[in-house]
Amino acid sequence: MTKTTPESFELICPIPLADYPRVLMAHGSGGRMMQQLIEKMFYRAFDNPELLSGHDGVTLNMGGIETSKVVFTTDSYVIRPLFFPGGDIGSLAVYGTINDLAMCGAKPRYLSAAFILEEGLDMEILWQVVCSMRRAADLARVKIVTGDTKVVEKGKGDGLYINTAGIGEMHHAVHIHPQNVKLGDKVIVSGDIGRHGMAVMAQREGLSFESDLTSDAAPLNHCVMALLDAGLDIHCLRDITRGGLASVLCEIAQSAAVRIDIDQQQIPVSDEVNSACELLGLNPLHVACEGRFVGFVTPTAVEQALEIIASFNHGDPVYIGEVTAGEAGLVTMKTAIGGQRILDMPSGELLPRIC
Amino acid sequence: MTKTTPESFELICPIPLADYPRVLMAHGSGGRMMQQLIEKMFYRAFDNPELLSGHDGVTLNMGGIETSKVVFTTDSYVIRPLFFPGGDIGSLAVYGTINDLAMCGAKPRYLSAAFILEEGLDMEILWQVVCSMRRAADLARVKIVTGDTKVVEKGKGDGLYINTAGIGEMHHAVHIHPQNVKLGDKVIVSGDIGRHGMAVMAQREGLSFESDLTSDAAPLNHCVMALLDAGLDIHCLRDITRGGLASVLCEIAQSAAVRIDIDQQQIPVSDEVNSACELLGLNPLHVACEGRFVGFVTPTAVEQALEIIASFNHGDPVYIGEVTAGEAGLVTMKTAIGGQRILDMPSGELLPRIC
Repeated sequence: MTKTTPESFELICPIPLADYPRVLMAHGSGGRMMQQLIEKMFYRAFDNPELLSGHDGVTLNMGGIETSKVVFTTDSYVIRPLFFPGGDIGSLAVYGTINDLAMCGAKPRYLSAAFILEEGLDMEILWQVVCSMRRAADLARVKIVTGDTKVVEKGKGDGLYINTAGIGEMHHAVHIHPQNVKLGDKVIVSGDIGRHGMAVMAQREGLSFESDLTSDAAPLNHCVMALLDAGLDIHCLRDITRGGLASVLCEIAQSAAVRIDIDQQQIPVSDEVNSACELLGLNPLHVACEGRFVGFVTPTAVEQALEIIASFNHGDPVYIGEVTAGEAGLVTMKTAIGGQRILDMPSGELLPRIC
Repeated sequence: MTKTTPESFELICPIPLADYPRVLMAHGSGGRMMQQLIEKMFYRAFDNPELLSGHDGVTLNMGGIETSKVVFTTDSYVIRPLFFPGGDIGSLAVYGTINDLAMCGAKPRYLSAAFILEEGLDMEILWQVVCSMRRAADLARVKIVTGDTKVVEKGKGDGLYINTAGIGEMHHAVHIHPQNVKLGDKVIVSGDIGRHGMAVMAQREGLSFESDLTSDAAPLNHCVMALLDAGLDIHCLRDITRGGLASVLCEIAQSAAVRIDIDQQQIPVSDEVNSACELLGLNPLHVACEGRFVGFVTPTAVEQALEIIASFNHGDPVYIGEVTAGEAGLVTMKTAIGGQRILDMPSGELLPRIC
């Protein structure tokens, strides 16, 4: 191996070790600590324009490819438990990654599937998960074309971790990106929020109070393709995952350097999710979905966008707010009782391992 | 989520549960049990021509792309310990995946990097690994353009697992694939074998008998590109990883339905690796490399291929045998004492977690 002298920037860990000498669960929770880890460590070390664009997936310029751009993304899945109402780690590993491609405006085409198996995992469970991946891939119309299998000793894993990477194609000449959000854009949400996170938490904690609580996990690509096929002027799409709606809005406000004002009363939350959140002391705005997205669209496109999304039966889409003149990076929320408060990214540990 | 009725094939786990009710370490060791898991379970469930082509990476036909084909691959890295003589999990995660692309004849362009971190991991260690990935990516001339971070509870991981997926481009109109191996092809090996596996084992077991034993981990893409740029008639390339040279040859003999005859005396094994293997009761032919490959080339191309490989200083490349008429799938080896024996894939657990 060629020996390379470390560059000077490598000499000091960019995460303040006095504050964070070790990795904490919160570094994976989708909130501010994860954002800092990504930006200070990964962006700094890997430093390239594609990575720093900071979207769910990255659009690549492949040599010789003029008519079609390739979009690339990856996610690992460490959800506990492996099976939950409305899905399992296998379907999640397919939907999560194709949804990231869809949020870039790409049509998902191919997935990889890499398994880290814990010694002692029931072979039957693995088969169930693998079959679920196939069904999910069929539903999303993608193919799982390459993969990898590793086994770690009992006690060095948690049954099964899956990584999927995805390749999609841009079929439309659109630029769907947080940095493309504009003053006056309307903010829409594709359905009620928080069901995935609360369904997993209820299953994990053995809470039987809400037997109707099922995950919203679903492939969003067909819905997004319909929006693009209709030629609607869409500036940004983002699926609501770790950190919930609040994190998504804060990230986009920061990334686009805009202010976003939303109305709490418009945000759809089911009674089941509200009750479960109250019981566990959680804010539904911080709870992950796996089949919901936020869209930033021009005012003239709102009505048709809501109609198209509704036709895909992913929940009742609604208009929740808009991009306004004001402090860049700020997200404000008109509360149900008529006040106004600043919406912040969650910090600390919220709901570990819900995806 | 749409409910789907399981297809009839899903009802019975294709791995005989009486024999293998649970996942064993050997299912990840690169030998026959891993091959069975992949073919019986993953090939059956995911079933598509791209996956079933059974190469290190898959060549994709993207719509509208005529002049350039996209190659896609993935690997997860669970090596223990994280640092070893000649590399670490970070450099390995870059080289391993770009080598898979190179073995398809593709020029590696982009990588994803997905981290599964164990709660409590030293932040400083993560930074060292991340910096190592950047140096490795620079050396291989690829960019890490997208990623993911998950954290699992202490005791549910082993410090750090990394998945990388890679995208490469075909720049040459070549078909480099196991199924392309032909009668009369010469078999070459790019350098001495087994150093990676034995360096990791020595480090893990605290064996200090061979302080000179360093991993062969290296990026092979520049060397492969030089072979292709020279216009040599290369039929198949395969990097020697889990399962060692024996596994690679057996897989290719099966995949191409040919017989391969090799000469043990030609296979380069360093004294350090031989001693370490003797001590641990291992066969060097079953030990992984991370910077060596096997090539199947036409007889007229052998000499120039060896010259080009030698110029990249990845070890001393040699001619070890040829593809002969005979039983499909058979690999025979002329032994040092003049006999002949059948070379088989390793079965059972060999060297767990060396990549």
